[in-house]
Amino acid sequence: MKTSSLFYCNPRFLVLGAGNGGRAMATYLAEKGYPVDLFNRSKEKLIEIKEQGGIWARGILQGFFDLQRISDDLEELVPYADIILVVVPASAHAELAHKLAPIVNPGQLIILNPGRTFGALEFRHIFDKAGVSEELIVCETQTLLFTARTLVGNGVEVLRIKDKVNISTWPENKIFSAYYRISHIFPQFRPVSNFLATTLNNIGCIFHPATTLLNSASIDRGQDLFFYQEGITPNTAEILKRVETEMITVGAYLGVRITPVIEWVKQTYGIRSSTLYDAIHQVKAYRSISAPKGLKTRYLVEDVPTGLVPISSVAKTIGIETPTIDAIIHLAGILSGKDFWRVGRTVEKLGLKTLILERSRRFLRTQVESQNLNELEEMLDEEE
Amino acid sequence: MKTSSLFYCNPRFLVLGAGNGGRAMATYLAEKGYPVDLFNRSKEKLIEIKEQGGIWARGILQGFFDLQRISDDLEELVPYADIILVVVPASAHAELAHKLAPIVNPGQLIILNPGRTFGALEFRHIFDKAGVSEELIVCETQTLLFTARTLVGNGVEVLRIKDKVNISTWPENKIFSAYYRISHIFPQFRPVSNFLATTLNNIGCIFHPATTLLNSASIDRGQDLFFYQEGITPNTAEILKRVETEMITVGAYLGVRITPVIEWVKQTYGIRSSTLYDAIHQVKAYRSISAPKGLKTRYLVEDVPTGLVPISSVAKTIGIETPTIDAIIHLAGILSGKDFWRVGRTVEKLGLKTLILERSRRFLRTQVESQNLNELEEMLDEEE
Repeated sequence: MKTSSLFYCNPRFLVLGAGNGGRAMATYLAEKGYPVDLFNRSKEKLIEIKEQGGIWARGILQGFFDLQRISDDLEELVPYADIILVVVPASAHAELAHKLAPIVNPGQLIILNPGRTFGALEFRHIFDKAGVSEELIVCETQTLLFTARTLVGNGVEVLRIKDKVNISTWPENKIFSAYYRISHIFPQFRPVSNFLATTLNNIGCIFHPATTLLNSASIDRGQDLFFYQEGITPNTAEILKRVETEMITVGAYLGVRITPVIEWVKQTYGIRSSTLYDAIHQVKAYRSISAPKGLKTRYLVEDVPTGLVPISSVAKTIGIETPTIDAIIHLAGILSGKDFWRVGRTVEKLGLKTLILERSRRFLRTQVESQNLNELEEMLDEEE
Repeated sequence: MKTSSLFYCNPRFLVLGAGNGGRAMATYLAEKGYPVDLFNRSKEKLIEIKEQGGIWARGILQGFFDLQRISDDLEELVPYADIILVVVPASAHAELAHKLAPIVNPGQLIILNPGRTFGALEFRHIFDKAGVSEELIVCETQTLLFTARTLVGNGVEVLRIKDKVNISTWPENKIFSAYYRISHIFPQFRPVSNFLATTLNNIGCIFHPATTLLNSASIDRGQDLFFYQEGITPNTAEILKRVETEMITVGAYLGVRITPVIEWVKQTYGIRSSTLYDAIHQVKAYRSISAPKGLKTRYLVEDVPTGLVPISSVAKTIGIETPTIDAIIHLAGILSGKDFWRVGRTVEKLGLKTLILERSRRFLRTQVESQNLNELEEMLDEEE
């Protein structure tokens, strides 16, 4: 059992993605003394890192951190990894899963940082179709562990490491064996056995697409704009509130509590507030965040297909209307020139219909009046 | 027949509304030597006009123009009028029709300037319910005859009088008797016997609500913004194009040609352009038009309930999807704190279902493949 004991003592990491989050992750692990390899799809972001053999960090983590292999060639790196940390936009997860499927091995552990809605499930869905062993566990975190930003060249500034980040796996029963392998490395991770609780609590969904849409002319013109401070106004915040309410409703029908923004801001920043508008405007860290320059932004092309689309798709499956979310998906699609329903994560595409109906039935059986339960049971019967 | 001959020779006018359009209308008629009374719902806009007994004009019409009775009391003015010109936001038409119903007389002629979608029909619908004689004709124009703006106190600047403005009546067969009474006063009016051609060609619907929505944070903050010049960008124009396409489709199924923006800009301003974005940006008159300061703007509270809502309602009646229009209606409703489906003009509220289905059937019978016709006939059969 030499390999196994080696593995648990000193796993070898591969970080996929050399953006803000990927650099912070690589630095975090290197600082703990682990060997870290780094991949990025485009060579450009790797040039200085490769030249100097590592990353310069400032902020909470400081100094120069050596990395091992640095490459844009997945096949070169994957065989060496024990734990693969995916730190790329969730909209790139599917493509990455297809590329990884033929080269991963069953003992590896994959962690999506974060998964957005149904990230781990989509990964495993693609792996299953490609015949990847069920032993390979895919985890997803609820949010990125770090608040960080890329500095010029090979730099990163890590502003914050969060105290608590929920983590789940798909299938759900793998969470404890996964957690056992990583808890000493990531003590911030909190294992959650109901994957829906992690995957549906996608707060970026509330903030990003609506605010981008309601400032889309300014963003398209490249106007200087503080995204939260100026981009969310008393009346536009009403639309964010509706998105939040629709998400809370979807969660409630599946027995999952979606954390409201006011509560999330209190948990994360210790700020008390009485309205969503007030909550967002009181967060100092938000005040200086600029809006993206142009509409080809992750706030649309990531948050819509891996957040609003799967949540709306779940809602439709259990017969709940999400008119605000649907309106945003439609208009964001026109702005982006994309059919987000086609490219996004849907219940149909992921084969989730029976699961979602069962979860809502299981919850409703104990909670809700019989009328809704009957409707859901009828739907489930049709499905079966 | 003294009264009758007097009427046709020298009708007495009552202008309802003392905003930009109402002042221009009153000035236009006074300049032609007709006696003109002026009503406004709130006294404030009438103060200086009443003090000085008329309106100062500059621009195309110049000088001081005497008015007769000036009041905020409808009952005081209506009995004297031969022709009543309604120049108020279309969202106020219904309330006005209810107030006029008990005090109008059958010989009067009412002209909505403009009606927006289903203005004359809504007016007559309310009149019918209130038992107003069928002899009283209600006309609606497609757009306001003037480009004008209010000046401080009792002033108005008339920048332009349009060459051609379509006019219809409801019921449609009244158009020629109405036209006979007004053509010498308004030679610009073009009688149109198919009221749908006038009422569905609501170009403000394409420009105003979408642009307001996509700049809603800026507008809510009261930012200085040129509505067309800055507020319509290459990517946001794609949403306006979709609204246009959906309106053209609805029109086509009813045998009505909706004028595309590019063509409308050519007709109105003589400008050739290749895209909707280009068309709007080439109109010099648009460049200096500021965005409203705040979201309680006619661009939402008028154009949505009297434009997008009735058009979407017609679409649903004949089985056409208008997802972009519907998304805008929904989000504009949240921004405005209004349920536009409840307050807006719908096929149900106006009792139009049979009419719309018959019109689409009549048109499709001669134009479209039998499959669609069958579907529509089935719908009509269900209705009957």
